[in-house]
Amino acid sequence: MKLHVLSKMGQRTTEPPISWLMHAALSRPKLISLAAGFTDNASLPVAEARTALNQVLRSPKTGRPALQYGITAGDPALRKLTAEHLRKLDWGGTPCRRPKNQGRRHAVPPEIYSPERLLITGGSQQLLYLTAEALCNEGDIVLVEDPTYFVYLGILQSRGLRARAVQLKRDGLDLAHLERVLQSLRRNGELRRVKLFYLVSYFQNPTGVTTSFQKKCGLLKLLKKFEYAAGHPIYLLEDAAYRGLRFAGNDVPSALAVPGAAERVIYAGTFSKPFATGVRVGYGILPKPLFTAVKHIKGNHDFGTANLLQHLVARALASGIYGRHVARLQKRYAHKARVMKLAIEKHFPPAVEWREPEGGLYFWVRLPHGLPSGMKSKVFSTALKNDVLYVPGEICYADDAARRKPNHEMRISFGSASEADIREGIARLGKVLRKFL
Amino acid sequence: MKLHVLSKMGQRTTEPPISWLMHAALSRPKLISLAAGFTDNASLPVAEARTALNQVLRSPKTGRPALQYGITAGDPALRKLTAEHLRKLDWGGTPCRRPKNQGRRHAVPPEIYSPERLLITGGSQQLLYLTAEALCNEGDIVLVEDPTYFVYLGILQSRGLRARAVQLKRDGLDLAHLERVLQSLRRNGELRRVKLFYLVSYFQNPTGVTTSFQKKCGLLKLLKKFEYAAGHPIYLLEDAAYRGLRFAGNDVPSALAVPGAAERVIYAGTFSKPFATGVRVGYGILPKPLFTAVKHIKGNHDFGTANLLQHLVARALASGIYGRHVARLQKRYAHKARVMKLAIEKHFPPAVEWREPEGGLYFWVRLPHGLPSGMKSKVFSTALKNDVLYVPGEICYADDAARRKPNHEMRISFGSASEADIREGIARLGKVLRKFL
Repeated sequence: MKLHVLSKMGQRTTEPPISWLMHAALSRPKLISLAAGFTDNASLPVAEARTALNQVLRSPKTGRPALQYGITAGDPALRKLTAEHLRKLDWGGTPCRRPKNQGRRHAVPPEIYSPERLLITGGSQQLLYLTAEALCNEGDIVLVEDPTYFVYLGILQSRGLRARAVQLKRDGLDLAHLERVLQSLRRNGELRRVKLFYLVSYFQNPTGVTTSFQKKCGLLKLLKKFEYAAGHPIYLLEDAAYRGLRFAGNDVPSALAVPGAAERVIYAGTFSKPFATGVRVGYGILPKPLFTAVKHIKGNHDFGTANLLQHLVARALASGIYGRHVARLQKRYAHKARVMKLAIEKHFPPAVEWREPEGGLYFWVRLPHGLPSGMKSKVFSTALKNDVLYVPGEICYADDAARRKPNHEMRISFGSASEADIREGIARLGKVLRKFL
Repeated sequence: MKLHVLSKMGQRTTEPPISWLMHAALSRPKLISLAAGFTDNASLPVAEARTALNQVLRSPKTGRPALQYGITAGDPALRKLTAEHLRKLDWGGTPCRRPKNQGRRHAVPPEIYSPERLLITGGSQQLLYLTAEALCNEGDIVLVEDPTYFVYLGILQSRGLRARAVQLKRDGLDLAHLERVLQSLRRNGELRRVKLFYLVSYFQNPTGVTTSFQKKCGLLKLLKKFEYAAGHPIYLLEDAAYRGLRFAGNDVPSALAVPGAAERVIYAGTFSKPFATGVRVGYGILPKPLFTAVKHIKGNHDFGTANLLQHLVARALASGIYGRHVARLQKRYAHKARVMKLAIEKHFPPAVEWREPEGGLYFWVRLPHGLPSGMKSKVFSTALKNDVLYVPGEICYADDAARRKPNHEMRISFGSASEADIREGIARLGKVLRKFL
């Protein structure tokens, strides 16, 4: 028998669907892609990035350091700025002030926002990967929302990890269902394989749902309840990738603001989506023992994210360029989301359900049962034929034998398409849907 | 019993020695570090990078793409430029011309330098990591030079891989020893666990040795010979990180120029060290099935290296900025290596052996047997007390029960230290050595 030269991981890892979709979008210029999670092209901060880079490279204090190696955990100045940025988001600018509109009783120690617990990564994607490496052995179980970010499902699949899916409601996780899942895992003796819950907490990819602060509290409480049976901590990995892209409603504090979070919450944030996706700088706040393990593994990956990018982001943050750009971007996405909403109202048949998001990049669309939307469906191939692309909902669902995988949804994005393309793309998609309904 | 929440990898991964050494160098300003593999600070291309970035961001053709996501394999323009750059290095500028000064009989198909087989990575370090992921299961064996790049040993240790060390001679690998190692692995039935040979082929880190083209041919032939018994291909991973930093002698073609290389050679190159280490852009040329697996795994890591960095390097390559900078850098390192050589001649006791390199960043120094140089040795602690730091040779040796680990060598670098610091650092180190000899 010929042995396989690829590792088990090498054999398991398949083309991530996002690569295929991104490639299709890049290589077929006539196609209107409502699929890829690209950000808005027209508002990319070209002039702003140029200004910030010139400032960085002109200054004797930062010019050379930006072009030299740094330390694995990241540039100290950026770590400090990021920790402060995050603390302000959660606590409204005043140290230890409680988050607005949240009925909580405890104060959070400011140490949770310490730069010492903050790691700079190559986009928040790298943090998701490193965390899986540091926590999970082959066969371990990760709890995820149902549906969830499909690239994360790709990580799990590649690393031989199993996902257990927890139902979503309009305001986030169904905690009663989570409890039933945990109970069933305890009964089967599999709770010890559960290492973390992966939560996309703001304008979730793909559904657009935002988890309320009360739900985060309840989630952490539930995980804690099952730790004794698990024999070890069960972490909450909060992926806040879209947090900066809110254009309606009020920000929700992160799980870091929940009492007791310091030892259990991993917060993954990013500057890429709110600033420029070509500048891949993400970050994580991690409980201390995990911080150390993840940092060491990152040392083997790349011993630190490119310093030039870190200096660019630090400059943009410190100079106000970043804040002004995010404010502009929010207005722009609000407008594009509205354009998409109006087009959907005009073109989609009434049997199609959809949700208007308060931020992020996506509308989540549900077709009537019995009308599949998957890669191999007639809806998908007809849409492609009509030069419009969406993300089939089915790829966002984990393999979980406990339920049948829904296959009649779609994620459509107003991120990268122009207003005209959004209108035209939705019109094309509406035409396709009307053909089947 | 309390189960450990960290994965086996999380538990195995220790602080890479380079992090410690880099941190010591960054946080102790009075210390002269001849340890860290930082590149020369004074010659960092600050003005050149600024020019190139302004060109990238001013051009309507590249401004926005540089700030947007790309595809996982890398920017097509950079992949093309890189493949061409590499082909020119190996073939002297003319398609299919044979490398100079190399007595070879076969022509190499130009397809081996195809952009389709070339992957852009976050420094070449990321390629080393991805290759280990794609090829090796826990317990597999990687053949390495003795000594070798210690961060690579860290990757192996973290991933539960075993190293078997092959002796080095002045002109590179001891092929007779390699054959004995392979024979012994075949006898023990462990050959099927051998997936690759990791070779640092130019001005090797740490010894400065360059592997001749003949040795590369012999190495590939030997690996091929044992493939039948292994049951699968045994790859050669050629790490050419220092290739651009030659300041004496002639370039040696890479293993890609060896007949039959297309299916067996993984070439890891980088633009970071010859241009700017804060701009982490590396690349790999890989045999096609491996290319695909590695690309998919990279999709899970980061779905592509930051586009801004890729555009910067592409601009620097296309405009000639890169070539001119490398030429200047080579002169600068030639000078610094000479400064170090003269200082060593002046200050080191005659019992100390050392080698003058033709490129790269390092001198390799051997103390008389019986005078250990390791982290816990008196020589090391006395050097630290005298504010001079070197890399103890012992950390560059794999754990391999087949031989006793040498512990009386040191790697000293002229990369980051100024001329004055090289002189003073070597004087301090000489004083320490004279105390013990």
